[in-house]
Amino acid sequence: MKQQRQLAVSAYTPADGFIRRYQKLVKDVVIPYQYEVLNDRAPGAEKSHVVQNYINAGKVLRGEDGGDGFYGMVFQDSDAAKWLEAVAYSLEIFPDEELERKADELIGLIEAAQDADGYLDTYFTIKDREKRWQNLTEGHELYCSGHMMEAAVAYYEATGKRKLLDVMLRNAEHIYRHFIGEGRDGCPGHPEVELALLKLYRATGERHCLELAQYFLDRRGQDPKLFAKEAKRRDWTVWGSDGEDVEYAQMYAPVRRQSDAVGHSVRAVYLYTAMADLASETGDEELLAACRRLWESITRRRMYVTGGIGSTVHGEAFTVDYDLPNDTVYAETCASIGLMYFASRMLEIAPDGEYADVMERAFYNTVLAGMQLDGKRFFYVNPLEVVPGISGVAVTHRHDLPQRPAWYACACCPPNVARTLSSIGRYAYGISADTAYCHLYAAGEVDFGDGFVVSCETGYPYDFTVRYRVKSGVKRLAVRIPGWSRTYCILKNGQECRTEPARGYVYLENMTEGDEIMLVLDGRPQFVYPSARIAADTGRVAVQRGPLVYCLEGVDNDGDVLSLSLDADAEITVGEKISGLPKDVVPLRLKGFRTAPGEELYTMQRPQRTACEITAVPYYVWGNRGENQMRVWVPCQV
Amino acid sequence: MKQQRQLAVSAYTPADGFIRRYQKLVKDVVIPYQYEVLNDRAPGAEKSHVVQNYINAGKVLRGEDGGDGFYGMVFQDSDAAKWLEAVAYSLEIFPDEELERKADELIGLIEAAQDADGYLDTYFTIKDREKRWQNLTEGHELYCSGHMMEAAVAYYEATGKRKLLDVMLRNAEHIYRHFIGEGRDGCPGHPEVELALLKLYRATGERHCLELAQYFLDRRGQDPKLFAKEAKRRDWTVWGSDGEDVEYAQMYAPVRRQSDAVGHSVRAVYLYTAMADLASETGDEELLAACRRLWESITRRRMYVTGGIGSTVHGEAFTVDYDLPNDTVYAETCASIGLMYFASRMLEIAPDGEYADVMERAFYNTVLAGMQLDGKRFFYVNPLEVVPGISGVAVTHRHDLPQRPAWYACACCPPNVARTLSSIGRYAYGISADTAYCHLYAAGEVDFGDGFVVSCETGYPYDFTVRYRVKSGVKRLAVRIPGWSRTYCILKNGQECRTEPARGYVYLENMTEGDEIMLVLDGRPQFVYPSARIAADTGRVAVQRGPLVYCLEGVDNDGDVLSLSLDADAEITVGEKISGLPKDVVPLRLKGFRTAPGEELYTMQRPQRTACEITAVPYYVWGNRGENQMRVWVPCQV
Repeated sequence: MKQQRQLAVSAYTPADGFIRRYQKLVKDVVIPYQYEVLNDRAPGAEKSHVVQNYINAGKVLRGEDGGDGFYGMVFQDSDAAKWLEAVAYSLEIFPDEELERKADELIGLIEAAQDADGYLDTYFTIKDREKRWQNLTEGHELYCSGHMMEAAVAYYEATGKRKLLDVMLRNAEHIYRHFIGEGRDGCPGHPEVELALLKLYRATGERHCLELAQYFLDRRGQDPKLFAKEAKRRDWTVWGSDGEDVEYAQMYAPVRRQSDAVGHSVRAVYLYTAMADLASETGDEELLAACRRLWESITRRRMYVTGGIGSTVHGEAFTVDYDLPNDTVYAETCASIGLMYFASRMLEIAPDGEYADVMERAFYNTVLAGMQLDGKRFFYVNPLEVVPGISGVAVTHRHDLPQRPAWYACACCPPNVARTLSSIGRYAYGISADTAYCHLYAAGEVDFGDGFVVSCETGYPYDFTVRYRVKSGVKRLAVRIPGWSRTYCILKNGQECRTEPARGYVYLENMTEGDEIMLVLDGRPQFVYPSARIAADTGRVAVQRGPLVYCLEGVDNDGDVLSLSLDADAEITVGEKISGLPKDVVPLRLKGFRTAPGEELYTMQRPQRTACEITAVPYYVWGNRGENQMRVWVPCQV
Repeated sequence: MKQQRQLAVSAYTPADGFIRRYQKLVKDVVIPYQYEVLNDRAPGAEKSHVVQNYINAGKVLRGEDGGDGFYGMVFQDSDAAKWLEAVAYSLEIFPDEELERKADELIGLIEAAQDADGYLDTYFTIKDREKRWQNLTEGHELYCSGHMMEAAVAYYEATGKRKLLDVMLRNAEHIYRHFIGEGRDGCPGHPEVELALLKLYRATGERHCLELAQYFLDRRGQDPKLFAKEAKRRDWTVWGSDGEDVEYAQMYAPVRRQSDAVGHSVRAVYLYTAMADLASETGDEELLAACRRLWESITRRRMYVTGGIGSTVHGEAFTVDYDLPNDTVYAETCASIGLMYFASRMLEIAPDGEYADVMERAFYNTVLAGMQLDGKRFFYVNPLEVVPGISGVAVTHRHDLPQRPAWYACACCPPNVARTLSSIGRYAYGISADTAYCHLYAAGEVDFGDGFVVSCETGYPYDFTVRYRVKSGVKRLAVRIPGWSRTYCILKNGQECRTEPARGYVYLENMTEGDEIMLVLDGRPQFVYPSARIAADTGRVAVQRGPLVYCLEGVDNDGDVLSLSLDADAEITVGEKISGLPKDVVPLRLKGFRTAPGEELYTMQRPQRTACEITAVPYYVWGNRGENQMRVWVPCQV
């Protein structure tokens, strides 16, 4: 079934531009800062203890005193894994001996923290070895293993060094023995190891990794009460879960029979990613059909216009169709990262612009918004509407912060953003037996293999001309036409191509050295209209330019966004540059009205309304200029 | 300080019309049904056990076997109290020997359940006498006493029978001895006994009741940690409260220094009612100033257009200024009843139409909506927007039900509606030393005392002409001009009066026998515009006619309300009667637009919009014709 595959990170060499600047920021700021955090040396950040946990676990295994023991969340190890994975991708783009040395050092600590039987988890190794594998619901052992497997594959591919890969192969074998060898029934409370095992399998060819991923996916939901039964068998919990919520961890039905995206949204998309990976490997049509249903459940009924998913803080979860509140939303950064993964896997199976459109929507909006422009602070939750005094304050809005905090006790998002940005080339380009795919518009040079090398020049996402030039080789090139582009034009060597796109891609045959494709997309700003089924958005519109969803911020609009409404009949124009935002950021000017707020809570007097100019900025830059009102969906007579 | 007082229920004899029909419904349906519930004989309702709790408590006190013990909430006794209070008011309007016999019988059981020392609470009497008064935070002993004191005063005033009054005077004396006599520090977790003690004081002149009310009000918030300390002293809880939330029970500051309406909204307004009562009794200006600040906090920043209060299910509580979500709202029926009480007490102190306007808003909208039109089902929570499939289903919306359930395990609201409807005359009319006040427009005859008797004829709230005729006596008459009436006209004996209203009231001097006042209010339907500070309502309008806020229901609008928007430039007209609703209900016809919902979640294509006629019905009748969409605030270019 497999149509194409992701390219290795090394196949994409970024050129100066939007993507490379972010990758450089990750290298220069995010990775060093997170290293300081992992080592408890970052001032102002919450204590991490990640590195010390590995040191202490190694001591415990050597029979020494475990020092100050374990500190942090049960999944604290995964921060190290995600950091290592980001480092691996970054090293491919920006070689750095000192950074590689730090990574090798950490890998040494990790190796020393692995038990003789292959088990690797500092929480249980330090705290209570006897409790290993007793609490799949909450224990996150498989989750941490999964992230470290991803890091191991990435680090091996980046550096050729096998140490971490071997550690994680031993760990995978340990897990295989426990679950399949010894016949223990179970599956992970937090899906992640499944997709990681499939990466490990692809990197090494180890069949046990494939078998184990398949085992976990097959077991999920076979017995919805599995976690509840597990909870009853032990006398301890991490967070008090009784395992009864069968939706939270997508246990409500066997995965092949699931149709609604439910429960914890990060768990959901990590699971669906693995399902798609497995379907791709095995040609399992039933599994693929489930992936398609779940994809539709998310993208047609449960996704924000920013590519955010997860409507509620309760379980950080999906709720029901069309329940998409803008202010109490969860929309975790990690969930949109997971949605990108799911989209990229679906795209590998069947090239369809729908998948790339969603991947791009999630990336350029929620994922980028997750990080402050200086790379130093992060959003876990990404609201589409913020009102200081309510957001972050009211009991229903405590999680929706009006500004990015430095570092969380639960720090899953920052390193997740780092690894995703550093590996964006994998999502931008793909290769099948006969076609080189350009999914996202990432400036740089791409080696598709078989000697087929293409350069991409573009000022995307602020400029909408993309030039592809074949540097060497011969192959069919597939160029994506995004769903948001009302019109487009493709020139091959200066001649307009009249090829109609098939499912969002224009296929250009026999592209050879020197051939140049110029793609001109329609970058006119436009209004986005919500389905009338989304109660929270009725009577409102959003604004988009290219892949960027825009928002209104108080700082650009006299401090008050709530009293503004838009005129959808007026043209949207490009505004002047805003000082305090990066130079490439293009603000938009809209026409609309400001309603006098008045003193009364309710009045029969029609309020005064004055025409005004309104400034919008890309959603991903919001919250970088102090605490203020922000709104994506703005009232407008539709 | 006291300017006026409420009239006794008996002073108002309802004439045929809107109010009397509701009072008759309470007598014919609500009171008998609730009696069956209290006796566990109502099919389909949740088990109540209230009467049996009294029987069992009596047995325990007599040293007999307590049978099946206690069942229900810790405040289960209060259901009996509110029922008795409703019965008392109803008996004044509709004498009924059989009903009075049932009430007497229940009072006999209550008397038998009173401990020798005056203590009265079946929960602790049956379950554990030793735990009395240990848990003021959650125990609700004072709350239950308060409700029974209110019932006792009402029953005494209605029937002249003193048995329950004497029981509750003994109970008050017991509480006085415990807290003041024995010097125990404390105040009620759920305010209620304070306002009840003041009623008891006014009915009997017992100074200890006044002192005790004052003691509880003075103690509140002096030590914000009072409940937390209490929790640490005992090894049991009812619901696990640690007493640390100082806002929940309005403990964050001494009452005279409180400014923001916070915490559990029913507790809040019961507290503020007592504060106003005490200020009225004692002339305490500092206390009155606090009442005024709290009144403004609620009515200018934290109240729904329906008179609902309490923005969140978390603690059934107020949140912060202008946080007024329409779909996840709490707006408990009891809270709006409490708001009526608070308004009526403020009105007694200083006649100002602002208080009467809010009282009327709460009554005609949220309080009436709390009860199904047949009197058989009740809303606890009163949302302003309902979407089947989300409301009552999504984890954030579980409390916002799309239809009224039969009876709750926590059944505070149904009997509260019954007692309020039966005693509405108290809120409609008041008397000061020199003036007879007409606050609400309630058809019937009113005996203001001193031989001054006035009749009121009106088809309010659907007809806007009100005729007052003096049947006997001489007095100044104050007639309210509601804030919603854009214009009005007053004729005295057919001649137009040009008297300007003072703070919402027109004062008519020397009204004598035969004098007739005709008040003609402006009943044209109108749009209501929200403050631009209310994020949830921006770009939307509501519709009101007289005191009635309207809503759109799916059943009148082709099943889909979410896709409708209003044209605020078009006239609102009176629609044709709707079968399935009571004959008096006046629907409204509005002009607007229907947006084609489309298949896509988000689209760049401006959706088709077609002009259409829209039907609105009074909010209080919503949810009486099956499950459907409902919306009060409707998109509209303001």
